[in-house]
Amino acid sequence: MPLTATKNFPLIAAIDLGSNSFHMVLAKTHEREIRILDRIGEKVQLAAGLNEALDLEEEAIERGLECLRRFAQLITDLPKGAVRIVGTSTLRIAHNRQHFIDRAKEILGHDIDVISGREEARLIYLGISHTLASIDDKRLALDIGGGSTELIIGQHFESQYRGSLQMGCVSYSQRFFKDLIISPARYAQAYTAARLELMEIEQTLKRIGWKEAVGASGTIKSIAQACFAAGFGQGEINQPGIAYLKQQLLKLKHIDQVDFPGVKPERASIFPAGLAIVEAIFDALNLDQVQAADGALREGVLYDLLGRHQHEDVRERSINALMQRSHVDVEQALRVENKALEVLQQLAEPWQLTDDWHKEMLSWAARVHEVGLDIAHYHYHKHGAYLVEHSDLAGFSRQEQQRIALLVRGHRRNIPLQLFNQCGNDSHALLYLCVILRLAILLYRIRGSQEVPELRLQATEDALEILFPACWLEENPLTAADFHKEAQWLTRINFKLSLGEYFC
Amino acid sequence: MPLTATKNFPLIAAIDLGSNSFHMVLAKTHEREIRILDRIGEKVQLAAGLNEALDLEEEAIERGLECLRRFAQLITDLPKGAVRIVGTSTLRIAHNRQHFIDRAKEILGHDIDVISGREEARLIYLGISHTLASIDDKRLALDIGGGSTELIIGQHFESQYRGSLQMGCVSYSQRFFKDLIISPARYAQAYTAARLELMEIEQTLKRIGWKEAVGASGTIKSIAQACFAAGFGQGEINQPGIAYLKQQLLKLKHIDQVDFPGVKPERASIFPAGLAIVEAIFDALNLDQVQAADGALREGVLYDLLGRHQHEDVRERSINALMQRSHVDVEQALRVENKALEVLQQLAEPWQLTDDWHKEMLSWAARVHEVGLDIAHYHYHKHGAYLVEHSDLAGFSRQEQQRIALLVRGHRRNIPLQLFNQCGNDSHALLYLCVILRLAILLYRIRGSQEVPELRLQATEDALEILFPACWLEENPLTAADFHKEAQWLTRINFKLSLGEYFC
Repeated sequence: MPLTATKNFPLIAAIDLGSNSFHMVLAKTHEREIRILDRIGEKVQLAAGLNEALDLEEEAIERGLECLRRFAQLITDLPKGAVRIVGTSTLRIAHNRQHFIDRAKEILGHDIDVISGREEARLIYLGISHTLASIDDKRLALDIGGGSTELIIGQHFESQYRGSLQMGCVSYSQRFFKDLIISPARYAQAYTAARLELMEIEQTLKRIGWKEAVGASGTIKSIAQACFAAGFGQGEINQPGIAYLKQQLLKLKHIDQVDFPGVKPERASIFPAGLAIVEAIFDALNLDQVQAADGALREGVLYDLLGRHQHEDVRERSINALMQRSHVDVEQALRVENKALEVLQQLAEPWQLTDDWHKEMLSWAARVHEVGLDIAHYHYHKHGAYLVEHSDLAGFSRQEQQRIALLVRGHRRNIPLQLFNQCGNDSHALLYLCVILRLAILLYRIRGSQEVPELRLQATEDALEILFPACWLEENPLTAADFHKEAQWLTRINFKLSLGEYFC
Repeated sequence: MPLTATKNFPLIAAIDLGSNSFHMVLAKTHEREIRILDRIGEKVQLAAGLNEALDLEEEAIERGLECLRRFAQLITDLPKGAVRIVGTSTLRIAHNRQHFIDRAKEILGHDIDVISGREEARLIYLGISHTLASIDDKRLALDIGGGSTELIIGQHFESQYRGSLQMGCVSYSQRFFKDLIISPARYAQAYTAARLELMEIEQTLKRIGWKEAVGASGTIKSIAQACFAAGFGQGEINQPGIAYLKQQLLKLKHIDQVDFPGVKPERASIFPAGLAIVEAIFDALNLDQVQAADGALREGVLYDLLGRHQHEDVRERSINALMQRSHVDVEQALRVENKALEVLQQLAEPWQLTDDWHKEMLSWAARVHEVGLDIAHYHYHKHGAYLVEHSDLAGFSRQEQQRIALLVRGHRRNIPLQLFNQCGNDSHALLYLCVILRLAILLYRIRGSQEVPELRLQATEDALEILFPACWLEENPLTAADFHKEAQWLTRINFKLSLGEYFC
């Protein structure tokens, strides 16, 4: 097979000139899908270089340009439309921004757009929504940057409300902790300033309402990690965690002493301001918790470049893309999916599989159950589970991916009961789904070569009788043998499968 | 992305009507590559149904047809050229074979070829050679079937000598252990009969010679597993293992008592005859050991269907196919490979990397170092290592795959010194190869956007100085920063990397 036959995929890149850090992400694109190739981030702290006249000082400009000279190496050759560079709050407010932009453009060879706070909010939401599990309810998204904080309420890929406030972890550090002294009074000033900013929008946000709150950016992540390291929550930011961190922080006298488990050393100096802003947001909006999310401005810029704004179920797209990447026999997968859903419909009542997620899990697992064949036939159910668990599947939560992976893992041969038992309350439902998936797969072991008959099913809690049309099993001895073997596998999970006939 | 855009790949199937078992394998093909989709094997013991008049008895015919009815379900819809069905020794010698063949053809809907022993040998060798690591030396391949044993000497994909002997584990069981009694005398008779058969060809085989011996088929595998379970060897059959198994066997009185760890119950009844044949082959050919191999007749039939006989380095093909499947940026991979080989040439002497395998490993690892990106960017070096280790890569040994996987695993971020240390004598060479690969990758982080300069290298055992053209690093600050970081990673493995300039 000649190697020259392989296509190269177009590259695109996004750069986000933030007030705290500059970030670049390089990706290849294929059929409106993005695969990340490279990421670079550097702490530049542009916001710290704004003087009182709101001019960027030369030293900060140089720090930024130094960083861009490194970034430039990766993108100088990309065509115009393939790169988008956006500047945010510090560049919005700096009087001498054009001076910086001109020099940056010379280095990068591409235009730089200083975007409005609301446009920033829109892009952040687009980035976050592509990398989170889909929900049908509204979502509040936060991004605390170096110079501004964006608050968005949206549904699916669309932001309904986009707010941008002039507060950020770097600018607030400059304003309230410039001399590096920590005191309750300074913290209170920062907190109060943030509350004042929030007053502008908190009523509107509450009126629109939301179901869950998520946050991106380094500040959110490092506070979430500090909460977790201190024993509060599972990786989200919550009220008790904030209270604890604040109490610990106010015991310190100097920013050099900030050293919380989970907080990277380079973020220590902006930690107090970040915490004050987070606490203010929690109080203003009566939040219980904020989940940390990946993906934000720069990912949004990439998706924007690709023109992907419409609502579409990102999970559908992710699953289909995985099938394509893994060269799945799509017709076979859809046959199995349809049969599995048909069986589910018949068993939903007796096995209490009536939630939406039951149907969704079964569908997804059916579509990807053969992805592991792309690696090897031997143990392909295990390889498939690895792929599903570790692939970058936009729109899915970690837990969803693990559960689909579990169904793929259990779709043939031994059913790993122990792994199912780790799924808590849902373990029983998942086991039933696994049984249904296996039946659909056995029926289609013949792939597309033959009609599969209508089945009649009789189920109790731990038994299933399958009735085939009279004589059908006799005429289809492979399927008969397979179902007899299946009955043996299922006894290992204390489940009784029996076969019979019906006469039409 | 519409799912209908996905292609389905043509299916092909091979059935092997052996004297002990019938086997079927179903595969999809793509650009002369085969991916196995399904395998079925059933113990039919056709040879046991041959009476003294060399007619197949009706009962055995029925057993065979029963099995084929199950197989038929999978292939009835495939077009003519996509299925090949071959019959071997029992069908070669049965007088009433046409009776069986006619009925089998009716069930399967495809022609059945009873092939000669030498054609069987050719196909077996084709099957084995596609699934083993390539070697440049000659290889002796054995396949002990139910009714015949094939011995082949070949090189690459070509068999030079093809021999087929009238001895098999089922026919010998019938002849020497029909009443299920085990005794030293019976074993000796079976052994002697096998020696007599072998006399026909042993001189020719020895004259041609071979470097290593491999064996396929159930008999070889189960004796190899019994040797391993008894503590002899690493999964191969060797002299002391045979001696031990024989000693244990001759303590028994009846075939029902045969119960060795590693031997499946359904193979117990033919174990004594199989062992006698294996011992005879070892003695006749003065073998020390025989490696168990996967793939034999049915895989050979598949490759034959695809028309793949010419010599081509199967490893090259496997690696290229993996790159294609995983959507690797081929141009980037080849850039990295070329640069890595260029660096290897400069460092081969000081680092004693002059063996062929050093160059091969580095080449292969360079080509596949980005395969993990197909799964996710996060931890893609680990996903890539998983893919390389577990993929079905024809022509590679397990050890080779593990080592390429290790280089992929270590190509970025932390170098897992502990994993390298598990590679025994070669761990140092592999670590050097890893350092070289990393340098080539860093130089091409810019991908194709820029010329990479000529480097001058000065190496000692644990240090490397890289000289760049004067001013080049200054003009390429990302590469400069990357190499400074790289120097830090390398100190963790006690290796000193320093950078300098040369003037042209």
